[in-house]
Amino acid sequence: MKNYDGYKYIQGGVCAAKGFRANGLNCGLNANKDKNDLCVIVSDVPASAAAVYTTNKVKGAPITVTKKHLEKTGGICRAVIANSKNANTCNADGEEKAEMMCSLAASKLGISADEVIVASTGVIGQILPIEPIKAHIKPLCEGLSYDGNLKAATAIMTTDTVKKEVAVEFELGGKVCRLGGMAKGSGMIHPNMATTLNFITTDARLDAKATQTALSEITKITYNCLSVDGDTSTNDMVCVLANGMAENAEVTVDSEDYGVFRQALFIVMSELTKMLAADGEGATKLIECNCKGSPDLDTAIIVAKSVIRSPLLKCAIFGEDANWGRILCAVGYAEADFDIMKVDVDIASAKGVIAVCRNGAGVPFSEEEAKTVLGEKEIFININLNQGESSAAAWGCDLTYDYVKINGDYRS
Amino acid sequence: MKNYDGYKYIQGGVCAAKGFRANGLNCGLNANKDKNDLCVIVSDVPASAAAVYTTNKVKGAPITVTKKHLEKTGGICRAVIANSKNANTCNADGEEKAEMMCSLAASKLGISADEVIVASTGVIGQILPIEPIKAHIKPLCEGLSYDGNLKAATAIMTTDTVKKEVAVEFELGGKVCRLGGMAKGSGMIHPNMATTLNFITTDARLDAKATQTALSEITKITYNCLSVDGDTSTNDMVCVLANGMAENAEVTVDSEDYGVFRQALFIVMSELTKMLAADGEGATKLIECNCKGSPDLDTAIIVAKSVIRSPLLKCAIFGEDANWGRILCAVGYAEADFDIMKVDVDIASAKGVIAVCRNGAGVPFSEEEAKTVLGEKEIFININLNQGESSAAAWGCDLTYDYVKINGDYRS
Repeated sequence: MKNYDGYKYIQGGVCAAKGFRANGLNCGLNANKDKNDLCVIVSDVPASAAAVYTTNKVKGAPITVTKKHLEKTGGICRAVIANSKNANTCNADGEEKAEMMCSLAASKLGISADEVIVASTGVIGQILPIEPIKAHIKPLCEGLSYDGNLKAATAIMTTDTVKKEVAVEFELGGKVCRLGGMAKGSGMIHPNMATTLNFITTDARLDAKATQTALSEITKITYNCLSVDGDTSTNDMVCVLANGMAENAEVTVDSEDYGVFRQALFIVMSELTKMLAADGEGATKLIECNCKGSPDLDTAIIVAKSVIRSPLLKCAIFGEDANWGRILCAVGYAEADFDIMKVDVDIASAKGVIAVCRNGAGVPFSEEEAKTVLGEKEIFININLNQGESSAAAWGCDLTYDYVKINGDYRS
Repeated sequence: MKNYDGYKYIQGGVCAAKGFRANGLNCGLNANKDKNDLCVIVSDVPASAAAVYTTNKVKGAPITVTKKHLEKTGGICRAVIANSKNANTCNADGEEKAEMMCSLAASKLGISADEVIVASTGVIGQILPIEPIKAHIKPLCEGLSYDGNLKAATAIMTTDTVKKEVAVEFELGGKVCRLGGMAKGSGMIHPNMATTLNFITTDARLDAKATQTALSEITKITYNCLSVDGDTSTNDMVCVLANGMAENAEVTVDSEDYGVFRQALFIVMSELTKMLAADGEGATKLIECNCKGSPDLDTAIIVAKSVIRSPLLKCAIFGEDANWGRILCAVGYAEADFDIMKVDVDIASAKGVIAVCRNGAGVPFSEEEAKTVLGEKEIFININLNQGESSAAAWGCDLTYDYVKINGDYRS
């Protein structure tokens, strides 16, 4: 993980911030009894919540219900309930079931159902059985603890091979604050949305506008710059709960502290993004595409994402083949205005940097050195458009036999 | 191949129409001496030519040179020269080499270099060696014949496993006309362009506007509705040469015969499109997505293409898994305005039709029957938006281990 001055990585995930408890267990949605499939996160005091959702027209019922709840409470939230294995999407009784999940948690926690955010991930179009959730809500809520983050983080995993948690400690106006999150991947992931399920908690005190603004800004340059396969999920959601228990002076968009908070959110979300990319379905390599020298931010993002999405490039990286023509091809079909004849491309890793293209044309390079560079697990594709000052990054992974295998029979 | 009243499939590919000769051979660009890599197509008399090109900002040098030539001659063309194995793209000397290919052919054929269309396909960013072409231009041109179509069709193949040729016979004003074509695939294929290399010849007499209008209209609903992997190639081109040797009254856009010609072009281009989809890199199944009940043609095309492009759906079809949620997911992220709650989806093949979704929600179906339906080689995904009268189709293929294998080390 990248180091940033003034921010310290800490343990604890969604429980790192003061006043957040979590728990997770197997309720039976997943036949594998060793795999958690249901979790709850609770704030000891009402938290201000911000969220961004999938842009897919098919929206999971939990998305609809969560939106409704946050509108009703004016963005106040006490708890999150989430399950894996079943997306509760495209079902006639979806909203009813999502509401039931909230009510079950609320009645056990002694809060209002409207104060609960609900999320589901898994197979689309299968009726969600509510009985297993009903039967396990009591132990789930009674087992909530200030170090239950790992149990929760594993409960939202689907085809993920590793749990994803990041947390940082920083200061706002002399007060120690913490911000941590957990995320799940790892297929049906593509930019232009809030990718996958991501829950962030913080004890920083912020007003609603600052929370939502920071979340939207950071989502644009982190989760929305992630592509595993180009499929935009129906159930994506990122939410931030800020409960104010760090007792800092309230952060507003115009306050000096806003930048400090925004940076903490950036660190956690960008590190989670990289974890999601590295654990993309079937992935053996993390690919980071950096685009600089761009006339504006949007162009840089569009170019970096176009490269990251290319199946041909993803296969070449899997094969450790320096087929840079595919990089330039993907730069070329990016839907933005720029001069392709000014573009430079390097391929890099911890083992070195290979210049492969200058001014839109190939330059000679050693295939042997390229092979060494591409043998690493983290590959960087560095593009300089040479026509401006803006830059952006996007993250993805290679395309492998295992992606095909995993997705050839996902439902079973 | 689908049957159409008034049109008869015939042999001959690009040599089916009167006055067209072709030839192909191995000149050594491809180390496999049994694989043709260079071809020429010649019309006995000047032909009126129309073309559409890739929308990629990175354009192969042959595209630039072909555009220039057709502008200079006002759309008059006598010959096509094309090679595989090297795309002659992103090279500093690309245009010079492409011009040399035209000059070499022109001097042997006794025509002007401006009357030659040039095309290249293969690896991007490697200098094209001109010597092998120079050394073989004599036998290539001397061996031209009225049944050389197969030699030419195999010369443009790259990772294609089968040659692609279609030709039809029809009547225009009592005169027998013929129209035939050849195409190559099979990776770096994605809508919004003239996909891959496709050469069409006809002895019908048309004015320039009718040729270009028909080509643009038919490209939109055939080649541009094809996606193998979402990568838009740098060297795509479709061109039509019409030499008028059938001696029909000249077809104009407003003449009654225009529809007859347009339909011939549709038949050849749509059948070639299906061949390209079925032979997509690593493909084991052809997928045809039909979208009807659409408010307009563009919406139908966008929805059908969105489904065809989804890697998750492509993997599910490979695995013969009726994971229809992925279909609805891809319909949902299609960038068009419609009501997702009215959408019906069927999965079909020669073995039957399975209704999987009505009004945006799942309906019960037999997994056993679905398995039987999905066991076929041609799979149909039939979508009814139930909100209009327009329809369109898109074609693609499944995503398999072999796609990854082929593209992990394409350059060697």
